[in-house]
Amino acid sequence: MPRVVVDVMPKDEILDPQGRAVHGALRRLGFDGVADVRQGKRFELTIDDVSHEALAEVRRIAETLLSNPVIESFAVRVEDGR
Amino acid sequence: MPRVVVDVMPKDEILDPQGRAVHGALRRLGFDGVADVRQGKRFELTIDDVSHEALAEVRRIAETLLSNPVIESFAVRVEDGR
Repeated sequence: MPRVVVDVMPKDEILDPQGRAVHGALRRLGFDGVADVRQGKRFELTIDDVSHEALAEVRRIAETLLSNPVIESFAVRVEDGR
Repeated sequence: MPRVVVDVMPKDEILDPQGRAVHGALRRLGFDGVADVRQGKRFELTIDDVSHEALAEVRRIAETLLSNPVIESFAVRVEDGR
């Protein structure tokens, strides 16, 4: 069945305390090649079909349930069925 | 600067209570076209360069810090610089 990925990330202008914590831990552990870390969420939705209507529904879900549009942005993309 | 994405997802054979909760909420709200939901994490790492060594370091970071290899799998990929 087709799988749709919804990536939810904090907007660029929003502080990201989780990403900051990871970045700080990396530096303390000696990983110096990383300049910045942002942490977000990834959802994999298995849907019945990838019609235009189904994808519009996934976008509604992403906007209303999976993300907080005030502080997060999201991206929806179809993955090849596995 | 180049950006590397690390996707961390619960392994297929592992129960995913977060994904289940989202799936249950979708059904209660009338979104019936979704057969399954899995929830994971997405990290965006800004790195200084995308050399072979730098990517090997990111994979070490993903394996030891960003994921729990017992229950999660991860994927590393380079995104075009933005």
